[in-house]
Amino acid sequence: MPIPAPNLYPPFNIVRLSHVELAVTDLASARAFYVDTLGLLVSHEATGMLYLRALEERGHHSVILRQAERASVGSLGFKVWDEADLDRAKAWFHGRGLPAEWVERPFMGRVLQARDPWGVPLEFYARMDRLTPVHQQYRLYKGVKPLRIDHFNLFSPDVDKAVAFYGEMGFRVTEYTADEETGRTWAAWMHRKGGVHDIAFTNGVGPRLHHLAFWVATPLNIIDLLDLMSTTGYLANIERGPGRHGISNAFFLYIRDRDGHRTEVYCSDYQTVDPDLEPIRWDLKDPQRQTLWGAPAPQSWFSEGAHFQGVTPRESDLKATPIVAP
Amino acid sequence: MPIPAPNLYPPFNIVRLSHVELAVTDLASARAFYVDTLGLLVSHEATGMLYLRALEERGHHSVILRQAERASVGSLGFKVWDEADLDRAKAWFHGRGLPAEWVERPFMGRVLQARDPWGVPLEFYARMDRLTPVHQQYRLYKGVKPLRIDHFNLFSPDVDKAVAFYGEMGFRVTEYTADEETGRTWAAWMHRKGGVHDIAFTNGVGPRLHHLAFWVATPLNIIDLLDLMSTTGYLANIERGPGRHGISNAFFLYIRDRDGHRTEVYCSDYQTVDPDLEPIRWDLKDPQRQTLWGAPAPQSWFSEGAHFQGVTPRESDLKATPIVAP
Amino acid sequence: MPIPAPNLYPPFNIVRLSHVELAVTDLASARAFYVDTLGLLVSHEATGMLYLRALEERGHHSVILRQAERASVGSLGFKVWDEADLDRAKAWFHGRGLPAEWVERPFMGRVLQARDPWGVPLEFYARMDRLTPVHQQYRLYKGVKPLRIDHFNLFSPDVDKAVAFYGEMGFRVTEYTADEETGRTWAAWMHRKGGVHDIAFTNGVGPRLHHLAFWVATPLNIIDLLDLMSTTGYLANIERGPGRHGISNAFFLYIRDRDGHRTEVYCSDYQTVDPDLEPIRWDLKDPQRQTLWGAPAPQSWFSEGAHFQGVTPRESDLKATPIVAP
Amino acid sequence: MPIPAPNLYPPFNIVRLSHVELAVTDLASARAFYVDTLGLLVSHEATGMLYLRALEERGHHSVILRQAERASVGSLGFKVWDEADLDRAKAWFHGRGLPAEWVERPFMGRVLQARDPWGVPLEFYARMDRLTPVHQQYRLYKGVKPLRIDHFNLFSPDVDKAVAFYGEMGFRVTEYTADEETGRTWAAWMHRKGGVHDIAFTNGVGPRLHHLAFWVATPLNIIDLLDLMSTTGYLANIERGPGRHGISNAFFLYIRDRDGHRTEVYCSDYQTVDPDLEPIRWDLKDPQRQTLWGAPAPQSWFSEGAHFQGVTPRESDLKATPIVAP
Repeated sequence: MPIPAPNLYPPFNIVRLSHVELAVTDLASARAFYVDTLGLLVSHEATGMLYLRALEERGHHSVILRQAERASVGSLGFKVWDEADLDRAKAWFHGRGLPAEWVERPFMGRVLQARDPWGVPLEFYARMDRLTPVHQQYRLYKGVKPLRIDHFNLFSPDVDKAVAFYGEMGFRVTEYTADEETGRTWAAWMHRKGGVHDIAFTNGVGPRLHHLAFWVATPLNIIDLLDLMSTTGYLANIERGPGRHGISNAFFLYIRDRDGHRTEVYCSDYQTVDPDLEPIRWDLKDPQRQTLWGAPAPQSWFSEGAHFQGVTPRESDLKATPIVAP
Repeated sequence: MPIPAPNLYPPFNIVRLSHVELAVTDLASARAFYVDTLGLLVSHEATGMLYLRALEERGHHSVILRQAERASVGSLGFKVWDEADLDRAKAWFHGRGLPAEWVERPFMGRVLQARDPWGVPLEFYARMDRLTPVHQQYRLYKGVKPLRIDHFNLFSPDVDKAVAFYGEMGFRVTEYTADEETGRTWAAWMHRKGGVHDIAFTNGVGPRLHHLAFWVATPLNIIDLLDLMSTTGYLANIERGPGRHGISNAFFLYIRDRDGHRTEVYCSDYQTVDPDLEPIRWDLKDPQRQTLWGAPAPQSWFSEGAHFQGVTPRESDLKATPIVAP
Repeated sequence: MPIPAPNLYPPFNIVRLSHVELAVTDLASARAFYVDTLGLLVSHEATGMLYLRALEERGHHSVILRQAERASVGSLGFKVWDEADLDRAKAWFHGRGLPAEWVERPFMGRVLQARDPWGVPLEFYARMDRLTPVHQQYRLYKGVKPLRIDHFNLFSPDVDKAVAFYGEMGFRVTEYTADEETGRTWAAWMHRKGGVHDIAFTNGVGPRLHHLAFWVATPLNIIDLLDLMSTTGYLANIERGPGRHGISNAFFLYIRDRDGHRTEVYCSDYQTVDPDLEPIRWDLKDPQRQTLWGAPAPQSWFSEGAHFQGVTPRESDLKATPIVAP
Repeated sequence: MPIPAPNLYPPFNIVRLSHVELAVTDLASARAFYVDTLGLLVSHEATGMLYLRALEERGHHSVILRQAERASVGSLGFKVWDEADLDRAKAWFHGRGLPAEWVERPFMGRVLQARDPWGVPLEFYARMDRLTPVHQQYRLYKGVKPLRIDHFNLFSPDVDKAVAFYGEMGFRVTEYTADEETGRTWAAWMHRKGGVHDIAFTNGVGPRLHHLAFWVATPLNIIDLLDLMSTTGYLANIERGPGRHGISNAFFLYIRDRDGHRTEVYCSDYQTVDPDLEPIRWDLKDPQRQTLWGAPAPQSWFSEGAHFQGVTPRESDLKATPIVAP
């Protein structure tokens, strides 16, 4: 299918992606990874729970680590403009026959938990506790000096339909990969907040979370993290990079925690606030869309992802021949 | 006056600042400055006119250089969401007894030219010619490698009133300087596009344009520009910096063209899309608000600015004792 | 063999590596690569010849490109302290039954051409034409902004013997790879000028030149080169990197010209002037010695190198089991 | 006087500057400054003493902090090639009627303490305890990530004579400032180790230590230090910078500890190993020699320096008209 025109007047106003809960099997080692190594700050600590934020964030948390028997991903959190948007969101999901219910969450006002047609748990809210700005308390900057959560990336068994669904919600496509032979969309990057994406979908067994991402200031922060990880016992946790994506133009690194949850650290994308921004099309056969500089990604990067709690992924019916990367 | 609550439901939807026309007295030397030294790209060239864009911009132009007898500034350009916003803008200005008329501009659709209460010429449009993306044609990157226009900064004779007026239009305050003794606002930074500002106002003889700004990727780009300018005959055009502002947290450099038009090159500010983002208050007596690292700005930076065509600035009645910087 | 103690009182005083001649099959395309892309400066141009220098070099040239039927490498050039060192060098080579004769070279004083025991052509001189410093003419900085030639790296069929021979000449080992099973040295990095190396030897079919290297200021220069090459038709010329070597600690990129001549661009090694600097030992089985961050090098990097004019390489009798990288 | 030709065959072989002792009035606050803020590593701690090294140094220490009643500077330490050089040094100083005696120092072999004609205490040694390399233990990198001691800079009441004296010892001039009116040398930068300087002299009340310097990898490390110091109570300790020196081409920052001891952090100078390197001449009237980008230095930078223990500085008879900076 062709990329649909953007919905410039969406049914409710999503401001940005906001937070995600990761279920991890060893909270202490997750803390060593996300706090001591990556450099996220602890906002709150409770039994079996850690709430984290990045350095320029004033919302209470962007990552929640939860001790669990098995690794998985909880809801993908999005901030909406105001309380009325929450009510409009609830009606919109219900109108499509999709679940959407109020849930209780600490440190937050009203929270609407919904599911997309593939079962991905989504969480919408207007107000989260606000914390004192610390972005100029430079003694707190450690690790990769993560500034803010940037995006979610998901494997999807039907990217065309995901683009249509999230597009109706107001996410606008900035770049996409087209499979010329089938006429299908192989992958798409969609945004609300004015960067290349808040959420992206890539063809594959899904729904699964491929990665979450944090924005950093310069490539040198990423080089610092590589040096640190490779000399403090985290060599095997470095999966791919550093490199530059053709798509998004971002300088990237992919790392994985002990449970396999993948994080991208990322900089150098561009501003996309124009409503008439033209989506950039990449051909599935162009390897530079993945890595502008040509180095291939490892097999794990193409195949491995994290399950959402209670959601069984299914195969995509779209196969690349020969099998190629997202 | 206290900073007013943000208007979250403005009368028309401004997306971002977009462009400005600078009248220059020697177009060839202005080209040497903005194109050959700063690194802007030429979109179009006509007799006495140059249309320029930065490297990630896809709109036709963000700076227009116009040969003139005397240096001055034309309209400050803003992009709105859609055509209906233009009509709403016209009605809104007329409702306040302010001029707002359709004008013809090359490379653009309908353009509404209005004036704020101090006479500043503003230009609103929804559609400008779109150009092919060149942000991955890296052979084009020169000079400071400017990525996009970032903001306008104005001297204002009544900052409190400017904040109120632009606030009604939907600009939201991110940071401001308060004069504790008088209870007045000395300066304010206001945004639409999700960065620290699209437009800022500082107390002083006004209205005058203090500077326009371009966003760059890293401080090293700014260091490269300093090295280039200081060894190619532009030493005297370096006015202030490099340094970091307390306000906005930006790493900055201020340079001036031969006519005195001031440009800031700038990186490292932060994301401000949250509607409940709390404005950061700085005290007029805190010198770190201007330069986090303490180095003072030169006198010219506090006093010199560019006139808008046909607009006579007036004194502010707010004086600092002792006279301090914006 | 164990690494021999450094010869702190060598028979003649080599100051540093200095220059190399590359025979190329298409001088115009070589110029496009080394000058227009990499950013070397042209010192002199003659029929079929280009003399190049890097930006902080004041010697006349560090690379000579010579049009030829077949690609190959000419002499490796080294600067000695004074004229007497040249005479001492001649006597020293003759004393070992090795060729060493005066040759004429443009832009240079007396030049002694010798050969090491494996036939590698070496060139020693004390005085080369000096050019005006241009390191502060920042308008000349292009491409990767190469600052100075840094080192040569050679495949050697007998690294232990190469280390012994060059060690007698006063080259001191800074780091080396030991093959624990055989007790042999797999690779060694040797210096005169106070960095990690002027010359390095790695086990393999040799003698062949693996690469020459240029020193740059920061990793961001290397990222700029990757962006430029990958978008100007040089994608296939990017062979390995970016990454950090465990050995030398350098941030690196390997690129190849159209004839396969390999250049490393390189930064972040360390000072080694202390005569009692302890060589750092790496185990052949430790993959981090090659890439601290873990990414493997491509096969070409391990096997391909350039022939010296008229010298037939031979196999090494030292085999890794399984075959591993240099 | 003109700059003398370099002495290429010095009486003893100095390898590099090595270390300095700073007497400080509050060791705890000095530790907070040099260790916790600047990022030097503690090699050894004893009552009233701290021995520090930078991150790539393998010698036991490059800075000694000693608790004292009054701030002052102890000996300037230099490493020589071998033990015989120490004996030759002793004879050379005695031959000039200057003191030179063996002293005991912890962590070092034989140490010769001498004085130059102006009373500056100098310390020469061949062997200091060697420590395990830690330059790849990236978790240890903090603050400005100082890599190695780079140079000493002294006020001298007679720069011409200082250049002549240190020149005889084998220090070679790389750059200098000439006072055209008087024909005198205003300042000179002299090296042994292959960078722009190990020691520099500037006209002024002396002998006094103007600063010691550490080499860092990139300007971004210096920006990080500025951010850290300006937000952790060290704003007043930032004296000058960031900027680029015309002389040496270095990107610099000057900071001062609580006792006024000045440290420069520094990168981007160039290699100077060639014995025929031509000294670069700067005119005293050229302000770009100090700051390539034009920003002036504060008065304190021109006038304040640290006394050597027991040495009374005297005025220079060379005055600039009008008084200009070193």
